[in-house]
Amino acid sequence: MRTAIDFYFDFSSPYGYFAAMRIDALAAKYGRDVEWHPILLGAVFKTTGSAVLTQIPMKGAYSLRDFERTARFHGIPYKQPPAFPLPTTVAARAMLWVQNFRGAEGAIQFAQLIYHAMFVDGINIAEPMHILEIAKKGGFDTTGMAEGVNSIVIKNQLKAEMDLAMARGVFGSPFVIVDGESFWGFDRFSQIEAMLEFGKI
Amino acid sequence: MRTAIDFYFDFSSPYGYFAAMRIDALAAKYGRDVEWHPILLGAVFKTTGSAVLTQIPMKGAYSLRDFERTARFHGIPYKQPPAFPLPTTVAARAMLWVQNFRGAEGAIQFAQLIYHAMFVDGINIAEPMHILEIAKKGGFDTTGMAEGVNSIVIKNQLKAEMDLAMARGVFGSPFVIVDGESFWGFDRFSQIEAMLEFGKI
Repeated sequence: MRTAIDFYFDFSSPYGYFAAMRIDALAAKYGRDVEWHPILLGAVFKTTGSAVLTQIPMKGAYSLRDFERTARFHGIPYKQPPAFPLPTTVAARAMLWVQNFRGAEGAIQFAQLIYHAMFVDGINIAEPMHILEIAKKGGFDTTGMAEGVNSIVIKNQLKAEMDLAMARGVFGSPFVIVDGESFWGFDRFSQIEAMLEFGKI
Repeated sequence: MRTAIDFYFDFSSPYGYFAAMRIDALAAKYGRDVEWHPILLGAVFKTTGSAVLTQIPMKGAYSLRDFERTARFHGIPYKQPPAFPLPTTVAARAMLWVQNFRGAEGAIQFAQLIYHAMFVDGINIAEPMHILEIAKKGGFDTTGMAEGVNSIVIKNQLKAEMDLAMARGVFGSPFVIVDGESFWGFDRFSQIEAMLEFGKI
């Protein structure tokens, strides 16, 4: 097994969701593990001066169409969430908590449940109560999680993860780093595959 | 021959250049003509609040790398121009002038020469003198062009083209419209192909 590849995403990002549905299979094809890193795009946008796509004049309507079209094109189930965009701090903290107590694999499984709830079932994942319901259905310890997401430890951990991500140049979702090479966007997956296959691009 | 597809681009846009190298062959494969429309991204950015990619914090360095990587990935010759970004008003006006006097096919040929000068030969196409040199090499009437690009007729024509483009929702480069369906970005070419092949997406 060679070095794991790093996958950064925001739980409110449709393209992050598409990437999440594909990244593990792509990496596994080339004998790689994936480290999943939840990030908060809001914090990044303060540095880049960007805004949520759907709130930008002209780009807004196009983006909504592109989300659905891209999902269809790749055969990924998708329903534009009624609450969008939304804050993903609680979801990100909950995922880190699962990672600490159930390991990376459990955290990935939990992240996929969150994304499915958001982009297929239209659940408002900004609500801590909904995050706990999703966790419960997935067989995770909701009592520990309810306390964990409000703990200083997890808050600091997410802050440190964000600082590290931005220090590595992460500015969007999805953002993938393979052996030091950075890729932004689900539409760079064919280039990521070339990088995994040939070791360079 | 079915309806032509519309292709919008800015002469200073690397992804617009990549699209320009591929769009005619893609359309021809499905029996379509392409109408090429030079636009000025600066005017669009005033509405969307966007900025040139390379001037955005964090995105800047990434973009420069992505330009070269994407060119390599698609087998398109590319050299990051020393003067970048640059104003493309003169290039756009010159192209419209060629269109008026030599027709659409001549204008496309001229546009490809401009793009090649910018992204392969590193020529500063903001300089009217350089535009005329490119035109001369391509066998275009440079005396008529020199006068034409400064005429009220061409200035108004570019302004009207821009108003029309923005009314149609064009906000980036490349931007392609196929039978009312809009696609932004060179990385949407596989979706454009699906649209051309199946008539929907």
